[in-house]
Amino acid sequence: MNVRECASLLKKQDDILIVTHKNPDGDTVASAAALCSALRRCGKRAFLYPNPQFNKKQRPLAESFLAAADFAPGFIVSVDVATEELFARGFAGKVDLAIDHHPTNTHFGSQELVQAEKSACGEIVLALTKALCGDVTAEEASLLYIALTTDTGCFQYDNTNDASLTAGAELLRLGADSPCIIKTFFRSASPARLKLEGMIYSGMRFYRSGRIAAALITQEMLRESGATEDDFDDLASLAGRTEGSILNFTIRELPNGGSKVSVRSTKEISSSAICAHFGGGGHAMASGCTIAEKPEKAAALLMDVVNELYP
Amino acid sequence: MNVRECASLLKKQDDILIVTHKNPDGDTVASAAALCSALRRCGKRAFLYPNPQFNKKQRPLAESFLAAADFAPGFIVSVDVATEELFARGFAGKVDLAIDHHPTNTHFGSQELVQAEKSACGEIVLALTKALCGDVTAEEASLLYIALTTDTGCFQYDNTNDASLTAGAELLRLGADSPCIIKTFFRSASPARLKLEGMIYSGMRFYRSGRIAAALITQEMLRESGATEDDFDDLASLAGRTEGSILNFTIRELPNGGSKVSVRSTKEISSSAICAHFGGGGHAMASGCTIAEKPEKAAALLMDVVNELYP
Repeated sequence: MNVRECASLLKKQDDILIVTHKNPDGDTVASAAALCSALRRCGKRAFLYPNPQFNKKQRPLAESFLAAADFAPGFIVSVDVATEELFARGFAGKVDLAIDHHPTNTHFGSQELVQAEKSACGEIVLALTKALCGDVTAEEASLLYIALTTDTGCFQYDNTNDASLTAGAELLRLGADSPCIIKTFFRSASPARLKLEGMIYSGMRFYRSGRIAAALITQEMLRESGATEDDFDDLASLAGRTEGSILNFTIRELPNGGSKVSVRSTKEISSSAICAHFGGGGHAMASGCTIAEKPEKAAALLMDVVNELYP
Repeated sequence: MNVRECASLLKKQDDILIVTHKNPDGDTVASAAALCSALRRCGKRAFLYPNPQFNKKQRPLAESFLAAADFAPGFIVSVDVATEELFARGFAGKVDLAIDHHPTNTHFGSQELVQAEKSACGEIVLALTKALCGDVTAEEASLLYIALTTDTGCFQYDNTNDASLTAGAELLRLGADSPCIIKTFFRSASPARLKLEGMIYSGMRFYRSGRIAAALITQEMLRESGATEDDFDDLASLAGRTEGSILNFTIRELPNGGSKVSVRSTKEISSSAICAHFGGGGHAMASGCTIAEKPEKAAALLMDVVNELYP
C-alpha cells in the first residue's frame, strides 16, 4: 500500500485507536500523536492507546490524544511497531493497519504501510499527514521533528541519510520548534543523571590501550546519584564515545545482583558471538546478555571471552 | 558580490593563499580546505596558510593543502574570519577577498562574499565550489559536512535552519562520509577527556533547585585526568545540560591560581551584567570574565552577584 492508498483507507474509517510499542521511544509516541492530530483535522474520532510506559518527556506529547477507558475502537492502527511481541497490551491479531519503517516488520497488520528505507516512522507520517489534510500544522511538524531527531540521534546515527535531512528541513519550514525540541530531548539532563554520568565516566575501564572500553553501573551508583528510570536513556552509548574504541561494554548491576550487559562493536568484532557465550545475542554490532555476577566480575568474564575469541 | 561574481573573480587569480582564523574551528579549516581543493581543480596554485593552532582533528583536513614557507601569494582569501583581529598572523590590510557568514564581519576585505544568513561558512563554499567547478567531489562534500555540522553542533545549535539541513542533505547525496565525520567530531573523546568529564559532572554545584548550575575545573582535575588542550573542546557546554537551568557557570582554574569563568544564560538573565561585576563582558546570553580566586571561591563570589542582581 502506498501513502495515497493508506490515506484513502483511513478516510473511510472512524473511531480510530493508534497504538505504540513497548518501551516506547520518541518515534513511536510522536509519530502516533501527529497522526492522531491529522486524523482529527479530517473530522475523525481518533485516540492514542494510553501506553503506561510513556516517560516524563513523552507524556506531554500524548496527553491531549489519550483514549478514555470506555473508548470502543472501530479501527486499530499501529505506529512504529515491528512485531506483535512489541505491543504493550494484547493487540496481537487485531491491527487493521500497521505503519512502520523497520526492515524486520513481521507483516502482522491486516493492511500495512511499511517503508523500510525510512530513518524514522515520522517521515512516513509526514507524507501521510500531507496526503490526509493537504497541509501540516506547526504542532504536527514539531511532533514529527521529535520523531525524526530521536530516531536518528539528531542526525548522528548511521541511519541518517539525505532523505532524513530533507525531511528535517521541510519540518523546520513547517514550523517545528527545533530549539525547544533539542533542549528537551538532547540537551537536558537531571542533576541525578549528570551525577550518574560523572560516576560512570570516572569509573570507566579501558583495555588494550583504549581499543576496548567498559562502563560499569552498580546499584550503589544508582542509589547515590538518585537516578530513576527517567534518567536511563541511552546510557549504553556513553562507553562508545571512547576515541579509537572498537568494542565497548555497558554493564549494569540488576537489583538481584546479576548484570545486564550491552555490547557494541565495529564490524571487525562480533558482539553477538561474545554475548552467545553467556546465552545472549542480538546483532553483529549491538548485542546483549545477562551474567549472574556483579559488574566488576562480569567485566572480567567478558574480557576472558574476548581474549579467547580475539587473542 | 554574489557567488557567481566571486567565482569569476577567483578564476582570474592565481597563487591563492587561503587564511583561517585564530583558535580555528571546524568551519574555518574545513571550508578553507574545500575551497582550496576546488581552486586546484580549476587549475590554480592554491594553498592554506599553515595556521599553527590547528588541532589534532583539524590537521589531517589541512595537511595536503598547506603552503610551504617560501610560497609567495598573489591573492589572499580569508574564510570564516569576522574581523582582522582574528588573524593568526599579520594579514591585516592584505585580504583581497573575504568569504564569511558572520553578521559581525567588519568588511575588511578588498572584496567580499559575506552571507550573514548562513549557519556555516561551509554553505557559502558549497555554492562557490559548484560555481567554480560545476560539481563537488566526495572529499569536498565531506569537508563541507564537517564545516556545517561543527558550526551547528550537528544541527543542535539555535542557528540551525531549514537551509542548513537542506545543505546537509545535498552534501550526503554528494558523498559526504557522515558516519566517519560524526564519529570523529561528535562521538569521540579520549580516555583523559572522559575521566575529566567524570570529575566535572561528579563535582557540579546546583543552586536554587538546579535553576543555576556550576561546573568547577581545577588544575588538580586537569593533572589527574591527563587531559591536554586537545581535550578542552566545548567544556563550557557541559553545565548547560542541567534540566531546567536558566544560568550556568563553567569555572576553570588557571595555572596561576585565578579562574576563567564562562557564563551562559537564558534570555531572562544577563550573563554580561554578571561578568561586568568582575571586569568581564560579552553577549547577554554568553559572557566571560576572570576572577583572581580559585574556582570554589569564584563560585561563591559569582553567586553573591547573582543574589544581588536577581534576589
